Amino acid sequence: MIKLDLSGVSPFLEKSQWQKTEQVGQIHDTLVNNYGVDYDFTTWMNLPETYDKDEFRRIKQAAEKIKSEADVLLVIGVGGSYLGARAGIELLRSPNYNLTSKYTPNIYFVGNNLSAEHINEIGHLLKDKNFSINVVSKSGGTLEPGIAFRVFKNFLESRYGDIGAKGRIYVTTDRGKGSLRKWADKEGFESFKIPDRIGGRYSILTAAGLLPMATAGIDIDKVMAGAFEAMKTYLVDKSFDNPVWQYAAVRQALYAEGRNIEVLASFEPAFRFMAEWWRQLFGESEGKSHGGIFPSSVDFSADLHAMGQYLQDGSRNLMETVVSFDSFRRDIKVPPIAEDYDGLNYLAGRSVDSINQIARQATVKAHVDGGVPVMGLSLPDMSDTAFGWLVYFFQFSAALSASIQGVNPFDQPGVEAYKANMFRLLGKPE
Amino acid sequence: MIKLDLSGVSPFLEKSQWQKTEQVGQIHDTLVNNYGVDYDFTTWMNLPETYDKDEFRRIKQAAEKIKSEADVLLVIGVGGSYLGARAGIELLRSPNYNLTSKYTPNIYFVGNNLSAEHINEIGHLLKDKNFSINVVSKSGGTLEPGIAFRVFKNFLESRYGDIGAKGRIYVTTDRGKGSLRKWADKEGFESFKIPDRIGGRYSILTAAGLLPMATAGIDIDKVMAGAFEAMKTYLVDKSFDNPVWQYAAVRQALYAEGRNIEVLASFEPAFRFMAEWWRQLFGESEGKSHGGIFPSSVDFSADLHAMGQYLQDGSRNLMETVVSFDSFRRDIKVPPIAEDYDGLNYLAGRSVDSINQIARQATVKAHVDGGVPVMGLSLPDMSDTAFGWLVYFFQFSAALSASIQGVNPFDQPGVEAYKANMFRLLGKPE
Repeated sequence: MIKLDLSGVSPFLEKSQWQKTEQVGQIHDTLVNNYGVDYDFTTWMNLPETYDKDEFRRIKQAAEKIKSEADVLLVIGVGGSYLGARAGIELLRSPNYNLTSKYTPNIYFVGNNLSAEHINEIGHLLKDKNFSINVVSKSGGTLEPGIAFRVFKNFLESRYGDIGAKGRIYVTTDRGKGSLRKWADKEGFESFKIPDRIGGRYSILTAAGLLPMATAGIDIDKVMAGAFEAMKTYLVDKSFDNPVWQYAAVRQALYAEGRNIEVLASFEPAFRFMAEWWRQLFGESEGKSHGGIFPSSVDFSADLHAMGQYLQDGSRNLMETVVSFDSFRRDIKVPPIAEDYDGLNYLAGRSVDSINQIARQATVKAHVDGGVPVMGLSLPDMSDTAFGWLVYFFQFSAALSASIQGVNPFDQPGVEAYKANMFRLLGKPE
Repeated sequence: MIKLDLSGVSPFLEKSQWQKTEQVGQIHDTLVNNYGVDYDFTTWMNLPETYDKDEFRRIKQAAEKIKSEADVLLVIGVGGSYLGARAGIELLRSPNYNLTSKYTPNIYFVGNNLSAEHINEIGHLLKDKNFSINVVSKSGGTLEPGIAFRVFKNFLESRYGDIGAKGRIYVTTDRGKGSLRKWADKEGFESFKIPDRIGGRYSILTAAGLLPMATAGIDIDKVMAGAFEAMKTYLVDKSFDNPVWQYAAVRQALYAEGRNIEVLASFEPAFRFMAEWWRQLFGESEGKSHGGIFPSSVDFSADLHAMGQYLQDGSRNLMETVVSFDSFRRDIKVPPIAEDYDGLNYLAGRSVDSINQIARQATVKAHVDGGVPVMGLSLPDMSDTAFGWLVYFFQFSAALSASIQGVNPFDQPGVEAYKANMFRLLGKPE
């Protein structure tokens, strides 16, 4: 399903620099067999097999109910409770999803910032619309979704009354702990769980990602089936034929050579938030102990006209991973014009998708020639199944890669620092 | 208007490391007096004073005409002919501009990629809508806007006939040269110019940026007035009181100390594409001769829950610039709730904007304590005037900063490499 083309890496690395079978094999075993207290946040690893099938059916039922009752689903969440769902919807439906005409509700994301401007605007967008709320928070104590839930729960109650509002609130939170769980149980909101021992950045295939995606019309059975196939393949193949091994080991070998920035590039604008999700997954897994590859992303070909100069000729501490799809959902042909003003008649009748593929090949070659190692990550298509596969590929790669780097892939010790300052400044009670 | 808070830099740099008055003064003079053949792309520098007033009136008239004739303005352009207009509209109107109800047309950007998916989708969005086209290309020979213009010009003609379509095409291109100029003159399209000796990344205050912004209801008189005030201030003040001097010199001094990534952060989602515009401006100006600070951006507080771990505790080759606004267009208060399930009642009645400001202060302190030098860039508000001022600030800063680095701020020698490969693979005639 996923192929990694490493021809753009071979000018920069010997195979012996990254194909360390014993080391990677040991790490693989450590992860799979869940050794050690620090490495216990691995529920995501078998999730495509072990997920709660009853709850999964309830997620699909809830999505159908939301489709029938609402013009808009408000998804309140931040970090892993935001980026995964948005990444899936933008890639599999559209980055312009809310503008397109369709049979599924619009999906607005709130509670991922503290911008009163943004919150007010979403309020305006809800005028004269029927809406429901999916609030997603493992603990329930996070500030951004907490404030947004207060605001929009009030709004919902003023619109539908207390009882009507209750039927339109869907909670995704911890199974047993935390304030949001308590709230949901007390008020009787329909609720879904984020399973134990799974971090926010690994939660995309839980209700956190699945309910908004299903509501947007994505076939979550296919998503899970893709992830399941990936799981079966990648957990078993303990060799450098495994693209997870390749991706994790190559990027760490390049990092050891001083390449401390990875640029994830795609030639489809629909991939933008998938790259944002990838940034969190890798940045939060690896960016610790004053080390780690800095994850950045570009949106080609737009960014060839913005960041292209830098990538071609700037500081040579970069590596690049270029995502591509072998087939497309839609194509269009370049129209001929009578007078060839723009000199593009030589392309008349050509498929724009094929031109996009050529632009990608040309870019990869130029960047490799310019001194940037490039990994080519290709998927067969932009389908729900391929998406599930890709999610699992990146999750396992991040875990393996961080472990090669020598850090715990599943903790995030640095995220509390600004919060401590903030709560002090806000005068939060002890 | 713009203040730079350097208290987050002082733990990392001595003043003597960056306050090199003689060096920066000489570069300032070189730029202002337009010395040397390589440095002649400086039309942008006096543009807020010297711009063509007749054309400016025509831009405003065209915007009024488009507002009256179209539900949608299709803006076809890439790079500097795309990011500037989008940045302005998202910051000054809204990142959800096209979803909001308003008296101005929707603005769809196309021709900035080679995605058939995207082109098809924009086609669907135009169904049953009246639309006009603004095609923006200095040369007219760029592939992405070229293909999009062919597709949507056909569509326009099928909708309005050849003559009707002609009246709905607005061309922004070179004054006298290039294929698009020829085309516009031959067919009689209304046209505007990108002045001579101005690069794409410095063209936001030309018709390239101004016509789409005016169509979206932005007061371009105020934008130009802000830029003019900035110009008067920054061109004259040859001292380290000048925030342009501060920003350019500090970032280059940090770069000399091994800080090779700059993260531009804002706490307003409306700033996202302003940061994309900034990335092109700095990345393309400085990323050359295998050097230059890598420009990246984050969208706080969302990205505190994604990239926060890395920024707090990852590789310490970062510097950060945090943009803030002293006042806001809209506010909202945290509502109280009867049972304090989420423990946020201590914030009840507090302004969300003030909480956002506190989150920013807390973040800056945490990052500085964690080993990242932070510059605080503050603006009075998110107004059209402040936007013009900020644009000029960044443009002059990029020119000064690249010059301190020892590279030409106005060329982009690396952008042709992939194009040469691409045209060969596409079989472009010589």
